[in-house]
Amino acid sequence: MKNKFAVIIAGGIGSRFWPISNEKLPKQFLDILGTGESLLQQTFRRLSKICPRDNILIVTHQNYKNLCKEQISQIKEKNILSEPSRRNTAPCIAYAAFKIRSRNPKASMIVAPCDHFIPNEKAFKKIINHCLSKSIKQDILITIGIKATRPETGYGYIQFSDKKLDDSNIIKKVKTFSEKPSQDLALQFIDSGDFLWNSGIFIWSVDSIIKAFRKHLFDIYTIFEDGKEYYNTIEEKNFINRFFPSCKNISVDYGIMEKSENVYVYPTELTWSDLGTWSSLYSHLKLDKNKNAVEGERVLLYNSSNNIVKMPKDKVTVLHGLDNYIIIERDNILLICKKEDEQNIKQFVEDVKKQLKN
Amino acid sequence: MKNKFAVIIAGGIGSRFWPISNEKLPKQFLDILGTGESLLQQTFRRLSKICPRDNILIVTHQNYKNLCKEQISQIKEKNILSEPSRRNTAPCIAYAAFKIRSRNPKASMIVAPCDHFIPNEKAFKKIINHCLSKSIKQDILITIGIKATRPETGYGYIQFSDKKLDDSNIIKKVKTFSEKPSQDLALQFIDSGDFLWNSGIFIWSVDSIIKAFRKHLFDIYTIFEDGKEYYNTIEEKNFINRFFPSCKNISVDYGIMEKSENVYVYPTELTWSDLGTWSSLYSHLKLDKNKNAVEGERVLLYNSSNNIVKMPKDKVTVLHGLDNYIIIERDNILLICKKEDEQNIKQFVEDVKKQLKN
Repeated sequence: MKNKFAVIIAGGIGSRFWPISNEKLPKQFLDILGTGESLLQQTFRRLSKICPRDNILIVTHQNYKNLCKEQISQIKEKNILSEPSRRNTAPCIAYAAFKIRSRNPKASMIVAPCDHFIPNEKAFKKIINHCLSKSIKQDILITIGIKATRPETGYGYIQFSDKKLDDSNIIKKVKTFSEKPSQDLALQFIDSGDFLWNSGIFIWSVDSIIKAFRKHLFDIYTIFEDGKEYYNTIEEKNFINRFFPSCKNISVDYGIMEKSENVYVYPTELTWSDLGTWSSLYSHLKLDKNKNAVEGERVLLYNSSNNIVKMPKDKVTVLHGLDNYIIIERDNILLICKKEDEQNIKQFVEDVKKQLKN
Repeated sequence: MKNKFAVIIAGGIGSRFWPISNEKLPKQFLDILGTGESLLQQTFRRLSKICPRDNILIVTHQNYKNLCKEQISQIKEKNILSEPSRRNTAPCIAYAAFKIRSRNPKASMIVAPCDHFIPNEKAFKKIINHCLSKSIKQDILITIGIKATRPETGYGYIQFSDKKLDDSNIIKKVKTFSEKPSQDLALQFIDSGDFLWNSGIFIWSVDSIIKAFRKHLFDIYTIFEDGKEYYNTIEEKNFINRFFPSCKNISVDYGIMEKSENVYVYPTELTWSDLGTWSSLYSHLKLDKNKNAVEGERVLLYNSSNNIVKMPKDKVTVLHGLDNYIIIERDNILLICKKEDEQNIKQFVEDVKKQLKN
């Protein structure tokens, strides 16, 4: 148990859920599912059934350090890794791996984004534990694959081969990764039957991932290797603030997973969703008889269906004749947008910022 | 000039413009046209070009007396007639007529609702003055007719006959009134060419209208005749508070105009609009290139057209993919409604009231 570590990636700025989330309060800190827990709290609780709490680390931007402390009261300061600047996932995973290794060179770690919806926690725990035990014994990088149930074009796909890790016949060798395919390609993936969604949840030993950094991202490896005497000391913060920004901006998928030879996937049938968009969220919300997901105690709907409505508790809101819209208000900002065009929200945020400057 | 009086009817509660107007602030007190003046202020100014200011009376519900004083700083207290209860137009016109007669038995008066849009004030003045001069000489009741340009089903129609008032050949005898016709009937009216919209603007001498009350609404006549010694004294208020509520609830159109033999119409080609609905208002507002009428400094529109948008000045509002909607916010109440279904707004207001009670 003491060799099991978890790293929660919680640095996103979540502009796609604007105006509910914003730079001051990104989605990972919000209870967007309406469960009573923020996504971060959910993720922490889920992982605390797998690792000792003291072995769960959160990587976040330094601006959100206090938010993490507020939301996860049990977490120790040393377990919050603050990035002084955003450098995508590879540098922050390297940081976490080196820091964990300095505590326990025999550690294995699970890396989990915190914007996932995974209702079956029991199955999840079993799968992760299986992977952790394999990762301790072998020099492999494991990713969790999800059975693709629809030709989703916003996800990454993993093609697996017949080659299996061992006699247990569960974990398969990865053949290729394919990020955000076209609709046609996504349909072919589904038909072929040997493609999975890439959940972005990884399991490996600190030893294996550091080895992979040395091989494929030597610059990043060198930066963190040079700081090995500082991790878990009072020097760590200074070291990170000074050298982290010099890391190149690259994802672990692109920098390590797509280039490594020892990548395996655990194909699962978990119910899983990357809560990256309002529409992905919608399918997990409680709906009224007209398929509206409504938050707000003073919302009246007439001839309206398939909407996501989130209004302040006491805001009197009358909606008539709206179908398939996102209707959101927060902090005196109102957004009404067709669900099918929500990819435009990032642009809206930019335009609003520009306008507010004038 | 001193014989010319005007009575502004300003007692409505304006729930059709909710949530911009409400019981506390009905539409007559709002600048819904965005001109810098409320409808009441506009009406007062328009009439002050015809009558001495001291001869302009406002009839309103007692709850709005202070609003009238605030908005029309020149008005004397004695010229605001407060209704203790709502009794439609006949009782309040009787009240005004008796009160004016006690000041000047030779007076003629124009009765004007204050929810009208009449951009050509010069033509309006000329028409009203013509009618006033006729009303002083003859025992007639004149209404202003507007050339009907479309088969509007929300208006009242006037059919006129060939019989004219005098050699000037302008003012015609009214044959029939027809309130809110069906679409088919409205089309027939337009085709026939001898139908006009009933503007609800009336001109008559106090003598003629009081005579008409005696003939057609004797109960109401008796109530106000009995109070003749009180008008324009300190007793007036007590008298009105005591006896006004006992008047029957009836419109002057139904109670007098439709029954009298001496009703004439001045057919005009005035641009005129009864600002009774958002859609009627829309046609008078400034539109952007996508035909949106937008109020609010922080409103961003994308793929949106033909909307009426009224947001608080500093409210950040992003609207995407909306066509032909009313989008209004005021006092923490948001309404979004298809323009074509705005007749439902009255029901929405009732439902909101009910909900707020729970």
